[in-house]
Amino acid sequence: MEDRWQDCMDSAVTIARQAGSVVCAALKEDVSVMVKSSPADLVTATDQKVEEMIISSIKEKYPSHSFIGEESVAAGAGSTLTDNPTWIIDPIDGTTNFVHRFPFVAVSIGFAVNKQVEFGVVYSCVEDKMYTGRKGKGAFCNGQKLQVSGQKDITKSMIITELGSNRNPEVIKTVLSNMERLLCIPIHGIRAVGTAAVNMCLVATGGADAYYEMGIHCWDMAAASVIITEAGGAILDATGGPFDLMSCRIIAASSREIAERIAKELQIIPLERDDGKNTD
Amino acid sequence: MEDRWQDCMDSAVTIARQAGSVVCAALKEDVSVMVKSSPADLVTATDQKVEEMIISSIKEKYPSHSFIGEESVAAGAGSTLTDNPTWIIDPIDGTTNFVHRFPFVAVSIGFAVNKQVEFGVVYSCVEDKMYTGRKGKGAFCNGQKLQVSGQKDITKSMIITELGSNRNPEVIKTVLSNMERLLCIPIHGIRAVGTAAVNMCLVATGGADAYYEMGIHCWDMAAASVIITEAGGAILDATGGPFDLMSCRIIAASSREIAERIAKELQIIPLERDDGKNTD
Repeated sequence: MEDRWQDCMDSAVTIARQAGSVVCAALKEDVSVMVKSSPADLVTATDQKVEEMIISSIKEKYPSHSFIGEESVAAGAGSTLTDNPTWIIDPIDGTTNFVHRFPFVAVSIGFAVNKQVEFGVVYSCVEDKMYTGRKGKGAFCNGQKLQVSGQKDITKSMIITELGSNRNPEVIKTVLSNMERLLCIPIHGIRAVGTAAVNMCLVATGGADAYYEMGIHCWDMAAASVIITEAGGAILDATGGPFDLMSCRIIAASSREIAERIAKELQIIPLERDDGKNTD
Repeated sequence: MEDRWQDCMDSAVTIARQAGSVVCAALKEDVSVMVKSSPADLVTATDQKVEEMIISSIKEKYPSHSFIGEESVAAGAGSTLTDNPTWIIDPIDGTTNFVHRFPFVAVSIGFAVNKQVEFGVVYSCVEDKMYTGRKGKGAFCNGQKLQVSGQKDITKSMIITELGSNRNPEVIKTVLSNMERLLCIPIHGIRAVGTAAVNMCLVATGGADAYYEMGIHCWDMAAASVIITEAGGAILDATGGPFDLMSCRIIAASSREIAERIAKELQIIPLERDDGKNTD
């Protein structure tokens, strides 16, 4: 059966690779850094340049499609997901890593139709790892099929999460208290690589059993969400409810059991939604 | 001028590479896990096999030398550092990563004479990165010279640390409280890759500005300590005093300023020394 979105997905892979080479080249030059919402929320001219490059390439081929891009939203564009084919883009997932040349930075391109993510492409450019997931057709890294660990026992699990860029003392307390609850279950350990997309892809490879975070955005999660589910993983909202691309929260795990067990421990951080709707 | 220990260092590189290929091959097989000091302190048959392989190769060439190896110490061998040429070995730094196939595991071989580390070799085998440092002669990764970031401003720094394998609730509280103090300075972020040796090498590359940890051991630090100082970094004890290979604590930073600033924030976790001497 023909895949209606195959041509879009092929374009996404090509564009992600081109964008990744621009990002990698920029790592060799001086990086000038600007601050966004907090002293730890950074952006560079490369983020903006790469996003423009990605969007203009796609627009040329698919002029009727919609876009939600991290830097376009920062510049005032809306981020409401409609039923129209929509490209959800993070030009550099892991900007703080990029600024420090910590070697995990990814170009993340997700593609949703009728609000469902159809495919996702995450290109971790320093590692030269191209992760792809197509709904119903599996997930791959550099052509090799991905499979989550399948671990169901939380006490044997390794979990990835992040300290995040919010420097509100109350938020930091909750982030650390969540880690404390999990460590005391006990679990094997916690890791933090500094990019949501790569963290989720690591779970998809089976290299960790879960990733959770609150305070990330749809462009951090869209592409990797389909990579992880196609690798056999489960995704939930951090509350334990159904995953919601616009809620700024995720638990992505090797099994539903692990995801639900993590949800039981997490205290929820109050967040504005990406689509501006009221939270309940 | 001839380097008295060049032959030893060449052997260390060769042996680390051989050991790394055994570790990488073992990652493709089933891993059977045993527990050491806590439910999160793991060891595998591969750790033991690789350490035996490394020590027997070195003993054959240098029968008069001494050894401190993680698994030999676990099996009851002493870990007192004498003036005799001493090889300080961690066959798999990042055993929990190894168990989970999280892609950062390293073979770490340090070499000390008169209690001073003369050279260190850290082979991050999944990444195929061979880090080396020779006292007075610089540090390298796959032949490329390493240089720390040189960052002196803590508010612009990215710091690596670990949650560790101790599951004592009081220790976990102190570990998290130290993170909280640093985050609130504020700093750019915290990362945790899961191996002390690779964490220190990442600082040596300039990819992060500091690494600190308490509760690690001389075999985790010996090799990477010389890699980081030869890359221009500074190492201190977590108390802010001089670095002590046997104290189970380290701050390794891109500058003395950053190291001292971190020391000011850290609450010290009580630990037994590796050499069994009394702590004051």
